[in-house]
Amino acid sequence: MKTITLLGATGSIGQQTLAVIRAHPDQFVIHALAFGRNVELARQFIYEFQPEKVVVQDKETKQKLTAWVSGTKILVGLPGLIEVCTDEAVDLVVNAIIGRIGLEPTLQAIKANKTLAIANKETLVTAGHLVMDAVAKHQVNLLPVDSEHSAIFQCLQGENEQTVKKLIITASGGSFRARTRAQLADVSIEDALQHPNWSMGAKITIDSASMMNKGLEVIEAHWLFGLDYDKIDVILHKESVIHSMVEFQDRSVIAQLGNADMRIPIQYALSYPTRIPLNDADSLDLVSLSQLNFEKMDLERFPCLAMAIEAGKSGGSLPTVLNAANEQAVAMFLNNELSFLGIEDVIEYALARHVKITNPDLETILAIDEETRLIVRDQIKR
Amino acid sequence: MKTITLLGATGSIGQQTLAVIRAHPDQFVIHALAFGRNVELARQFIYEFQPEKVVVQDKETKQKLTAWVSGTKILVGLPGLIEVCTDEAVDLVVNAIIGRIGLEPTLQAIKANKTLAIANKETLVTAGHLVMDAVAKHQVNLLPVDSEHSAIFQCLQGENEQTVKKLIITASGGSFRARTRAQLADVSIEDALQHPNWSMGAKITIDSASMMNKGLEVIEAHWLFGLDYDKIDVILHKESVIHSMVEFQDRSVIAQLGNADMRIPIQYALSYPTRIPLNDADSLDLVSLSQLNFEKMDLERFPCLAMAIEAGKSGGSLPTVLNAANEQAVAMFLNNELSFLGIEDVIEYALARHVKITNPDLETILAIDEETRLIVRDQIKR
Repeated sequence: MKTITLLGATGSIGQQTLAVIRAHPDQFVIHALAFGRNVELARQFIYEFQPEKVVVQDKETKQKLTAWVSGTKILVGLPGLIEVCTDEAVDLVVNAIIGRIGLEPTLQAIKANKTLAIANKETLVTAGHLVMDAVAKHQVNLLPVDSEHSAIFQCLQGENEQTVKKLIITASGGSFRARTRAQLADVSIEDALQHPNWSMGAKITIDSASMMNKGLEVIEAHWLFGLDYDKIDVILHKESVIHSMVEFQDRSVIAQLGNADMRIPIQYALSYPTRIPLNDADSLDLVSLSQLNFEKMDLERFPCLAMAIEAGKSGGSLPTVLNAANEQAVAMFLNNELSFLGIEDVIEYALARHVKITNPDLETILAIDEETRLIVRDQIKR
Repeated sequence: MKTITLLGATGSIGQQTLAVIRAHPDQFVIHALAFGRNVELARQFIYEFQPEKVVVQDKETKQKLTAWVSGTKILVGLPGLIEVCTDEAVDLVVNAIIGRIGLEPTLQAIKANKTLAIANKETLVTAGHLVMDAVAKHQVNLLPVDSEHSAIFQCLQGENEQTVKKLIITASGGSFRARTRAQLADVSIEDALQHPNWSMGAKITIDSASMMNKGLEVIEAHWLFGLDYDKIDVILHKESVIHSMVEFQDRSVIAQLGNADMRIPIQYALSYPTRIPLNDADSLDLVSLSQLNFEKMDLERFPCLAMAIEAGKSGGSLPTVLNAANEQAVAMFLNNELSFLGIEDVIEYALARHVKITNPDLETILAIDEETRLIVRDQIKR
């Protein structure tokens, strides 16, 4: 039995994590749930999973919840997140929070020697060196939940990582893959939220449309698998059936395939190092699919990906700026304050004006993150 | 340094095995080479690899070779094969002999606790239970060389075999995949030898055209991976890029991909459990390939596959009959004594008239094999 803290319980990954746990009550039990402000949904989950603790974003949310909950301790904000990530009872923390806010709970969970299933890619983008240093120091398992990184992780099982030649990350192309850049000038929020293959949260869906998501994934892969950027390729694969691949020195390529069902990588992280049955799911049917397609990734068509790879290669504090600028820009796009193509413009602006700091510590990263968000806001509202 | 005996040195797999060994003189050394009658080629290999022993098919071949060779002992026939498979100096036996004749050397190598790289699928088809019993008893590694089985074996690394849901073996469709059955009536030997993807020996190329090769592979997979026939699927995949796949209980599918280069599975068996660089080989380029296609396997179009699966499921001595009838029929097709569609007719005839023996021992298998070949010859010449 694994005792689990789940951060981001009411989000897309959080809900699917609960679906996996619900299907295997003999293997997993919830210790704590953390969510933002979605009280309606949280109430159902608290009722169903009876966590010892919940963490909410603010005092107002706590107040709304108090009347409904008995026997569950309600905590607020970052101190609450850290408490539930480090509780002695916890074996595994699933970090499915969106954005940089997941960083400190991640670091604290690692320091408390918890196994960490990480869906919060921004954590690794903004402070990959700090996270991986902590993982090495505390010898914990850092298990990827992103479908691409779970694929690579699965392909690496039983292999010697020294024999890896290249990672090949696949990209669906996102909502706007069929459009030219000229056709992107006046796309709407609703258009951007229509992902062709995956049903996901708003932020990651916009990141997929801009291809920034793939850029964040390249940086995440660099940290998770300890490979130079020139050993990480991205190719377009519109069906999203091959979730990613590893080429080895002997030219053998191992790939992980599956339907677009996030329960597969989530459950793999939960059941690792073994696999357990996935209930109510269909087998991948390649015969019905009939065809898989592959195309070269066009970095001019997708400048966000190019910027991300450059920021990753350059390193230091640049990925922090990239991530913070992107988080702020996407939030403002979703709030109708910025056009879709404006997202890449402000990220480019933020990166250009930043003076890189090598090997930034946590305090520096948090300061740069805050400063970058302010700069982006100012630039957009000007 | 691994010391290797190679059976079938002048065949297609044998020559590619020598290419791998040639490229890694720091890792592999040849102890013995066995071949049939190709003295020209064998002389070159003896000169280059300086084996301690060679084994030839008959005394005439030995005589032809004697004048050319000094310092290498020349052995003849089955006793010679067994001697070089069991020599104390040998770590690994590569069995790339074609046909049932490879069975006794295989069994003797296992009993002598050698690691065995097996390209000789007929061995596992005709006597899989005997081979796997010996493997279990002597706790040796039986490493597949067939690209499909190597793919499955690679996909299973680091996995718990209890969590396998299904093997998915891919089939290119062979030389005649674009033809209807009506168009197969008068195909020539030359037509049948034109495999669309792989350059291989004559016997396996004909087996590919008739889809018997895939049938033999299903039986081979049943034995190698210990799975029931209802857990082994075959699908058509004309590009032969995905060499085979494993679906796990969690609906995750792991696949091995690569160019049509038999050095990859051969070298993997030689370097196992690690990987080493493959020299002078290109990376798989999915972008250039652009598309992978999948189709349902049609058992009515390919009755040899249906017969093989049925013989495998029924078990006992039926796979021995299937294999012997096929070996004899293909030899006679290649000798212009039988039409292409005649191959399946005589196999069907041999299976129909056979009274199954459950759990046959080696003597029984060899007797049934001989008897079946005679029956097929008589039936064809009648």
